[in-house]
Amino acid sequence: MPQSVHSDYADRVEKLAREFASTAIERDRQGGTAKHERDLLRASGLLTISVPREHGGDGATWNTVLHIVRRIAEVDSSLAHLFAFQHLQLATVRLFANPQQQAALLGGTARENWFWGNAMNAVNNQVVAQAADDGFRIDGVKGFCSGSRDSDRIMLSALREDGKGLIVAGIESNREGIDIRDDWDNMGQRQTDSGTVAFSNLFVTSDEVLGPPGPLSTPFSTLRPTLAQLILVNLYLGIARGALEAALDHTRTVARPWPWSGVQAAGDDPYLLQRYAEFWVDLKAATRLADDAATHFDKLWQKAEDITADERGAVAIDVAEAKILATRVGLDITNGIFEQMGARATNAKLGFDRYWRNLRTHTLHDPVDYKKRDLGRWLVTGEVPAPSFYS
Amino acid sequence: MPQSVHSDYADRVEKLAREFASTAIERDRQGGTAKHERDLLRASGLLTISVPREHGGDGATWNTVLHIVRRIAEVDSSLAHLFAFQHLQLATVRLFANPQQQAALLGGTARENWFWGNAMNAVNNQVVAQAADDGFRIDGVKGFCSGSRDSDRIMLSALREDGKGLIVAGIESNREGIDIRDDWDNMGQRQTDSGTVAFSNLFVTSDEVLGPPGPLSTPFSTLRPTLAQLILVNLYLGIARGALEAALDHTRTVARPWPWSGVQAAGDDPYLLQRYAEFWVDLKAATRLADDAATHFDKLWQKAEDITADERGAVAIDVAEAKILATRVGLDITNGIFEQMGARATNAKLGFDRYWRNLRTHTLHDPVDYKKRDLGRWLVTGEVPAPSFYS
Amino acid sequence: MPQSVHSDYADRVEKLAREFASTAIERDRQGGTAKHERDLLRASGLLTISVPREHGGDGATWNTVLHIVRRIAEVDSSLAHLFAFQHLQLATVRLFANPQQQAALLGGTARENWFWGNAMNAVNNQVVAQAADDGFRIDGVKGFCSGSRDSDRIMLSALREDGKGLIVAGIESNREGIDIRDDWDNMGQRQTDSGTVAFSNLFVTSDEVLGPPGPLSTPFSTLRPTLAQLILVNLYLGIARGALEAALDHTRTVARPWPWSGVQAAGDDPYLLQRYAEFWVDLKAATRLADDAATHFDKLWQKAEDITADERGAVAIDVAEAKILATRVGLDITNGIFEQMGARATNAKLGFDRYWRNLRTHTLHDPVDYKKRDLGRWLVTGEVPAPSFYS
Amino acid sequence: MPQSVHSDYADRVEKLAREFASTAIERDRQGGTAKHERDLLRASGLLTISVPREHGGDGATWNTVLHIVRRIAEVDSSLAHLFAFQHLQLATVRLFANPQQQAALLGGTARENWFWGNAMNAVNNQVVAQAADDGFRIDGVKGFCSGSRDSDRIMLSALREDGKGLIVAGIESNREGIDIRDDWDNMGQRQTDSGTVAFSNLFVTSDEVLGPPGPLSTPFSTLRPTLAQLILVNLYLGIARGALEAALDHTRTVARPWPWSGVQAAGDDPYLLQRYAEFWVDLKAATRLADDAATHFDKLWQKAEDITADERGAVAIDVAEAKILATRVGLDITNGIFEQMGARATNAKLGFDRYWRNLRTHTLHDPVDYKKRDLGRWLVTGEVPAPSFYS
Repeated sequence: MPQSVHSDYADRVEKLAREFASTAIERDRQGGTAKHERDLLRASGLLTISVPREHGGDGATWNTVLHIVRRIAEVDSSLAHLFAFQHLQLATVRLFANPQQQAALLGGTARENWFWGNAMNAVNNQVVAQAADDGFRIDGVKGFCSGSRDSDRIMLSALREDGKGLIVAGIESNREGIDIRDDWDNMGQRQTDSGTVAFSNLFVTSDEVLGPPGPLSTPFSTLRPTLAQLILVNLYLGIARGALEAALDHTRTVARPWPWSGVQAAGDDPYLLQRYAEFWVDLKAATRLADDAATHFDKLWQKAEDITADERGAVAIDVAEAKILATRVGLDITNGIFEQMGARATNAKLGFDRYWRNLRTHTLHDPVDYKKRDLGRWLVTGEVPAPSFYS
Repeated sequence: MPQSVHSDYADRVEKLAREFASTAIERDRQGGTAKHERDLLRASGLLTISVPREHGGDGATWNTVLHIVRRIAEVDSSLAHLFAFQHLQLATVRLFANPQQQAALLGGTARENWFWGNAMNAVNNQVVAQAADDGFRIDGVKGFCSGSRDSDRIMLSALREDGKGLIVAGIESNREGIDIRDDWDNMGQRQTDSGTVAFSNLFVTSDEVLGPPGPLSTPFSTLRPTLAQLILVNLYLGIARGALEAALDHTRTVARPWPWSGVQAAGDDPYLLQRYAEFWVDLKAATRLADDAATHFDKLWQKAEDITADERGAVAIDVAEAKILATRVGLDITNGIFEQMGARATNAKLGFDRYWRNLRTHTLHDPVDYKKRDLGRWLVTGEVPAPSFYS
Repeated sequence: MPQSVHSDYADRVEKLAREFASTAIERDRQGGTAKHERDLLRASGLLTISVPREHGGDGATWNTVLHIVRRIAEVDSSLAHLFAFQHLQLATVRLFANPQQQAALLGGTARENWFWGNAMNAVNNQVVAQAADDGFRIDGVKGFCSGSRDSDRIMLSALREDGKGLIVAGIESNREGIDIRDDWDNMGQRQTDSGTVAFSNLFVTSDEVLGPPGPLSTPFSTLRPTLAQLILVNLYLGIARGALEAALDHTRTVARPWPWSGVQAAGDDPYLLQRYAEFWVDLKAATRLADDAATHFDKLWQKAEDITADERGAVAIDVAEAKILATRVGLDITNGIFEQMGARATNAKLGFDRYWRNLRTHTLHDPVDYKKRDLGRWLVTGEVPAPSFYS
Repeated sequence: MPQSVHSDYADRVEKLAREFASTAIERDRQGGTAKHERDLLRASGLLTISVPREHGGDGATWNTVLHIVRRIAEVDSSLAHLFAFQHLQLATVRLFANPQQQAALLGGTARENWFWGNAMNAVNNQVVAQAADDGFRIDGVKGFCSGSRDSDRIMLSALREDGKGLIVAGIESNREGIDIRDDWDNMGQRQTDSGTVAFSNLFVTSDEVLGPPGPLSTPFSTLRPTLAQLILVNLYLGIARGALEAALDHTRTVARPWPWSGVQAAGDDPYLLQRYAEFWVDLKAATRLADDAATHFDKLWQKAEDITADERGAVAIDVAEAKILATRVGLDITNGIFEQMGARATNAKLGFDRYWRNLRTHTLHDPVDYKKRDLGRWLVTGEVPAPSFYS
């Protein structure tokens, strides 16, 4: 299965994966901020790889970033999420900011190794920006702010009170007027710190407001949600792969055949073999669609502002396809591996339920039903999905 | 849906259900022994309802008992399991014990309101009974001993060292030589106290060894695993029903439609309606098979020692059918309700993942694949499943 | 499985089933009117069993009629359809007609053994009735007129040109102005004669127009589509049962194990046993829902004009549930049995594809998606489906 | 979707596809030998494209051949099968024959445009070869001999009576001792002429017996069944694609929305959009696996006799994966498109059932369950499938 991490990063990623794996079950139990592991990510140098070379980064492709996301998600999908959303914020700078802002924020990230948090939840309409002297005063509370705690910079959005749309800015996380709360307690993705952030008379200067082009203004700038969706796809696939490998390992090393099965080893059980085959085929196929979509995305990323609405639509279709399949496959696998492992695998110490809890939580980010509706419409009419915060 | 609790018990059961529901999410988090709730069960008088009238109980039918199991499992499947296994031990007395033993153990239960624990796990072969003066010395450690902590009596099995099979006895839980450990920590069914019990030079008198007829000796006595399977079926269905009702309640009271859905209320979403319908139909059908199997079981229970191997096989087929369907339906529902509820429903405080964790744990009791194999064989050849500890 | 035909009719039904079975494959190939088999149905006396006793029939319950439908559908679902629709027309008389009309049409059927055809397709709006002297002139062409060829009487509907709704009448099939065309050529249900009927200046007297109460006027009269749906359910289940039994018979008598399977007989193949079990459980559960719905329907039928809209809604829900499950189960089985039989079972002489063709055709009568939507709505809001031509 | 036919052949293939499509429904009804269409295939020049350049062909890759198979299968999977099996016989020459035989048979095909038939069914053990003077006398009857009627050459296998294994030879179809029967009458793939061939005292010279290396002798030579499986995969995908496109076309041009759906056009129905999306995603994913497997196969084909058993095993795994997915997806689509089209789509003139009949027939070639078992074993143990006639 084509899941290998780029050779420039493979050693570092494998080392991180091993460290994360060794404590993942315990940290899932605890929840809260994974301070130690966040610092390992900082120390790894991987937080800056997607920064373009001209701004001091590696200029890694999205395929490269996403393969790392997937690998880390195999063992710890919370940390994979934080790593992925770091690069989503960097992409946001690239997509929305003007050249000076790009230089400042991308260059700053490369130089100072900023870890970015997210306060961009688009369904929320309670955070409001009021024009003030050469800037905005921002107030309100936002939820699902992944990675905001222990962050150095935060990407935030607010609705202009004057009805002129959305402003986006990337600023220091500890600026006066920002209260990042420790209130994330979820059934899954427990260390993503996706709690609430309260803004109270926060001042943001006009220069800090990203743009032009700004959010959702050109076909290229509307790629942000497409990339966010592609990240989700790869998180799902990483979780599913992790679950499948954990089950296979259990079968190979621990499992005993059912006494009435007539076979001598768990690995000879005909039903177990059947299910592994089905899971594997589905996972491989979904991974293929994800990689194709990422390759497609990278190609448009290179074309940047030259891409057309149709080209943007075409990659959104590819990403939607990958997401539909990854969602189904991921749920099937994380729900289904238990049949291959048996009752003793439900011991809390083994933590096998976390795959399902993580995936089930994350696959609700936005409803896959409406991805299907959009895709179905495209099949029937040729109409691509309208860019939105979720497609 | 035919799920109503017998009118003699409805008020008490509803009161218990309400009390259990109010703390179920928090107790799921804590795990450990639900001492307060076990005492509520004791105080309810429901622990003795399956004791025959002649021994001071209500002589409740299995349909009656199982409907209560299902109702309690809607809100708390750990307590439903403890309640159900109480009655499984009482059935064990009826099936294995001689008349004097029945009088003592069933009468004692009725008079003194004993709560029974279970140390009968049949896959285990490490608990051994050595013949001693007019009795046996029992040593070894047994796992999955549901309800053993805080129990008054315990039903235990041990393999005779002399190869003469299994002995079963129901004795005081606090007898010298019994160490009931507080070591159950599982991903689901967290308050069933299904930890280990260690036997160390435990003495059991010959009179205490149940029989004749003893275990698995006659078609009637082999109904114990059939009843155990039927209990599992009803636990699964109760959990699934609880999950579905919780989701419906969420849709009715909390859920908002997806902004791009084009509908004004969550309850108008076409995909949500579709899934509810599918879940409901499957659950209703599975419940029907379960009730039919219980009715069939009650009929054979009345015939008692007169039943033939074929009659026993026929009810085992009915129970296997119900279990196959309840397993699939339960997994579908507890995994799938989240689509109807959305991302905000993954908040740990809401505890919606416990349905899946409880069901996923419990559906691994024994592999449903081999129930299918047995049923398939019966369809092709007419051969009923051989009685075993699991069918 | 509870599928037995009422003892009053069992011998006749079994005899018919054997005769139909012996030529079903060849007649499926030919299509067209099954004149010989229609005459066997006439001769059997079964065409009048649902006629109330007071009008000279047996007053058979709907459960009785539907069990016969199901049994015949196991071997020939076209003839089962014709038999079922005969009784649907008789129900139409009971539901829509005034007492004199009932006496004439039900009594006439009992005395003269009329075989009824159907020209009631409700989606069609091209057949129009123009008021004329003490009657109506009817013109237009209607499709899906099952059983119209070789019929003695025909039940027809037409839209009044004056906008006053629908008229329904049951008249001689050979009346001037009726042209029953031999144009039914479908992928399945090939001998249902569901072709077109053209009306050209057909005169129907006012006395022949059924009512009061007339169509869809009272809760009771709106039971016609409910009964039609229940007939469909039982046709699906009969087809599915026939397919499953045919496959089992093939496994028992013809099939060879796959050379690389490691088993000695097809009946020992673990995957084959798995699938049979799944098919059987699903079919049994669906059959249970169908029988429950029929029992519920029979109860309302007894109450007749006393039933309320809510009672009518409740049985429509039961029927919708049964249909949703029967549709899925039927498609799974008729599509899936081939895996158990292997490549040699695709020989056209064996006719195993006809189960799928028949079921696939018939399950498109009206979209099951909208049954799910209705059921989902009821679950969320408690609102029962509005009576229509399809619910 | 990556389904485009190589530009060298695109025009010819599209022309054939159009011609085949225009009569496919009628020819499916008739069955028998598609003489006219076989001659169109002959005239197209496409029968020789896989012949290596050195022997006068185009040396087309397998990816190229398989894309053509898939395209033709969209409109007529019988003719696609004949075209594919032509090239399978040419591959057989390449894999089993010695250089002189290759020159004669491949060169002869290129020069004289031979259409090859198949008499290689490996499960059959009734065709026996008895050593005779410098050759063999062959007797017996073989089934499933696709493309044998109207063929110029036939590839046959026989078991040596002396127990020394299998002989394979490619000879004139009209040689004395060969009786190609017109007895193929199946529920699907009706114009593949897969009937029986009877051999009666047929003489084959030693020089005609292919080898060395001969059948299944080296890792390279064992690629024949792998290629045969890959052909099946692409036939399935072509059929599924054809069905999906036909349904989409129907939705766009003919279908009406369900009157109670609340939407104005069939193409706005939410359930229809959902299903199209699911079908499409699955088909695209399966197609991706198929193309990857073909690319892998082409790579090994280039290495020829240098490939190792492990390399051969790896491609067999890829092909098995593709087949497992293509089988499921194909059945889902050909069974499921009807929901999108409605009752009127079951008219026999439209022939929409032929997709399912063709696919259902062909997916039984060998049991996919055992492909899953092999794949599952590889996942658990790393052991690749042993070469056989079917893997």
